[in-house]
Amino acid sequence: MKELQARASELDTSDPLAAQRERFVLPDGVVYLDGNSLGALPAAVPEALADGVHRQWGVGLIRSWNEHHWWQAPLRVGDTIGQLLGAAPGQTVAGDSTTVQLFNGLAAAARLRPGRRLLLTDPGHFPTDGYIADSVARLLGLEVLRVAPDDLPRCLAERGHEVAVAGYSPVDYRTGELHDMPAITRAVQEAGGLMLWDLCHATGALPVRLDELGVDLAVGCGYKFLSGGPGAPAFIYIARRHQAAFDHPLTGWNGHVDPFGLSGDYVPAPGVDRARIGTPPILSLLALEAALTAFEGVGMEQVRAKSLSLTGFFMDCADTLLDGLGFTVVTPREPHRRGSQVALRHPDAYPLVRALAARGVIGDMRAPDLLRFGVNALYVSHRDMLTAVRHLRQAVTQGEHRDPRFLHRAAVT
Amino acid sequence: MKELQARASELDTSDPLAAQRERFVLPDGVVYLDGNSLGALPAAVPEALADGVHRQWGVGLIRSWNEHHWWQAPLRVGDTIGQLLGAAPGQTVAGDSTTVQLFNGLAAAARLRPGRRLLLTDPGHFPTDGYIADSVARLLGLEVLRVAPDDLPRCLAERGHEVAVAGYSPVDYRTGELHDMPAITRAVQEAGGLMLWDLCHATGALPVRLDELGVDLAVGCGYKFLSGGPGAPAFIYIARRHQAAFDHPLTGWNGHVDPFGLSGDYVPAPGVDRARIGTPPILSLLALEAALTAFEGVGMEQVRAKSLSLTGFFMDCADTLLDGLGFTVVTPREPHRRGSQVALRHPDAYPLVRALAARGVIGDMRAPDLLRFGVNALYVSHRDMLTAVRHLRQAVTQGEHRDPRFLHRAAVT
Repeated sequence: MKELQARASELDTSDPLAAQRERFVLPDGVVYLDGNSLGALPAAVPEALADGVHRQWGVGLIRSWNEHHWWQAPLRVGDTIGQLLGAAPGQTVAGDSTTVQLFNGLAAAARLRPGRRLLLTDPGHFPTDGYIADSVARLLGLEVLRVAPDDLPRCLAERGHEVAVAGYSPVDYRTGELHDMPAITRAVQEAGGLMLWDLCHATGALPVRLDELGVDLAVGCGYKFLSGGPGAPAFIYIARRHQAAFDHPLTGWNGHVDPFGLSGDYVPAPGVDRARIGTPPILSLLALEAALTAFEGVGMEQVRAKSLSLTGFFMDCADTLLDGLGFTVVTPREPHRRGSQVALRHPDAYPLVRALAARGVIGDMRAPDLLRFGVNALYVSHRDMLTAVRHLRQAVTQGEHRDPRFLHRAAVT
Repeated sequence: MKELQARASELDTSDPLAAQRERFVLPDGVVYLDGNSLGALPAAVPEALADGVHRQWGVGLIRSWNEHHWWQAPLRVGDTIGQLLGAAPGQTVAGDSTTVQLFNGLAAAARLRPGRRLLLTDPGHFPTDGYIADSVARLLGLEVLRVAPDDLPRCLAERGHEVAVAGYSPVDYRTGELHDMPAITRAVQEAGGLMLWDLCHATGALPVRLDELGVDLAVGCGYKFLSGGPGAPAFIYIARRHQAAFDHPLTGWNGHVDPFGLSGDYVPAPGVDRARIGTPPILSLLALEAALTAFEGVGMEQVRAKSLSLTGFFMDCADTLLDGLGFTVVTPREPHRRGSQVALRHPDAYPLVRALAARGVIGDMRAPDLLRFGVNALYVSHRDMLTAVRHLRQAVTQGEHRDPRFLHRAAVT
């Protein structure tokens, strides 16, 4: 225990990102390990949003579409996100929800591969990805195959020539397992299909290198590791080579080549701005834009190094302090095989997560038995890791997971 | 002129809604007649949004989905909007953009009428409505007919048996003409089709009576007469009788019967909440929710009466002050035939709108030659009407529409 304390202290002292915590507002006495569900409040957001409300909306009124550059916000914020993903400017647009971006991107991707009738998706995906694949397949007369990442080589060998598009996430949202993005991208493309990555659990958490890997399309959300606020706008990345042929179903006026010409036929803008849909939620976009300043001067390699150090240390703490208490570490131990979270399996996951919250340690759970602890390297410390595991040990040893207060199920966990 | 001043003063003195202006923050020296494009800032918004940021997001973090009822926000805000539309609770959901709601609603409506292959839309519609009809038709193998409201009886007599759904707007966004909602709804339904209304220019501007008219579906935006902020969330209304069969393409996890069960198959929620899509933009929803409090204690009949008084008085001012200056009043004179705006035709519409803005009167224009003046009865006065028309007269008589400062075209008007 003393040793772990000493190590936490040492790691935090030599942490080159330690000062970034000042860029966030966190309540006293809370260890926040749910930034993979909703990122903490960046300190720059309140002022930016107040300015957006008072000066831009209140005083500028309709003129702010020009004078405060609201019209450019989806592309401007998109490019800033693109920087974190290794995407050159002009390929990323922010707006709408991940669900909507997935739908639009998946349908457009399938249309780029006419004659191929398979959509591949991960049976372990966050459910929306599967639902949307099913919906797109139904509309376009295609077939969805749910193929685990490990089974992809076999599937592609057999039916690769039929694959239009494969939609996968690099990080398993439950276990935190990190799949091999370069290998999967290559395999799908070698079979002639397009690769669409769902980056919800990767954006802002680890380097992605979209351009370098030659990824075709990607989507992701703004409210997890980007800390853009509850339900922050999502984004879509369309590799430049696909933009001119990107033929999407959500043909809103914002994506028209001449939006204010108000012509009756939809003629898409030539570049990535064709993926703009309707009028974007400017207040939420301004909050996201301010949140992204927390990444200024920070390299994604640094974020990744600290994230791995945090999750590695968490697992070491768990090995030492949770031994014999019914927990299994589900997240892979090898650094190259894990994202930015640690998942523990325990039959009492639900009451334990609630007991932890009562102790000021906020994680979350995924049914039926996983406790998830996400780490955002910009505001989480090694000391936080040890504190969390110590509280977990105390909660179990003191039987809090059998406390009726924590057994009653709330509407949302 | 003196007479018009006296009349403005008299009408404003006896205006039962005069006090509502206090519910909005308007910059000094500005007459704001573009609330049909972006509503002014309601005074309740800044505090509600600051609370949403600091206390709910910053302190509550992920817990606020429960503790501050974020999860219920789309339905709660939807029901509040529904009240303004004559819709009983449980039929309206707020979220996403109008484009997205239109797409989802139109596709679901078409699926409710299998075997019928026509989608009817207005050639004079805001362009997105036509684009989305074309997109849905392409996906579902249907045909779009662009039929002006006046031609609907003839079209329905000939091909009514083929009509799946008709999507119309009660108010022409350019001219302000108000179409006969009850008659159109009845005619479409008598032909066996479904009626989908785009209420962008009606919501918060006039009584709509969705339930009473037996409308099938409706969508609309939050940022015009609802004053919910730039790009505020839109909404969809699904009449209760259609909800169980509402089969939409945007099958996001928020619309699942058991969203946190995270099951692999999409099973929609039984009620209107199936029209929830992805995670909603909470900050923008909280702003919209606060904005809607400006309607508390105000009946839509009162709003309508004042709106008609304002637009009627505007036209009287135009008749008197703009005579012989090249303007034509395009908006119908009969009260039952106009919405909540006045449109004037003038060959120099663009520089005139800019010259007016420099004088502190903010309207907008629609290509090629329409000046639009929208009135929001909650914060516009009869005196504002006279001020606007006087400035317009002065701008023309002083040749400001030929001033090079106002001829250069900005990116967005």
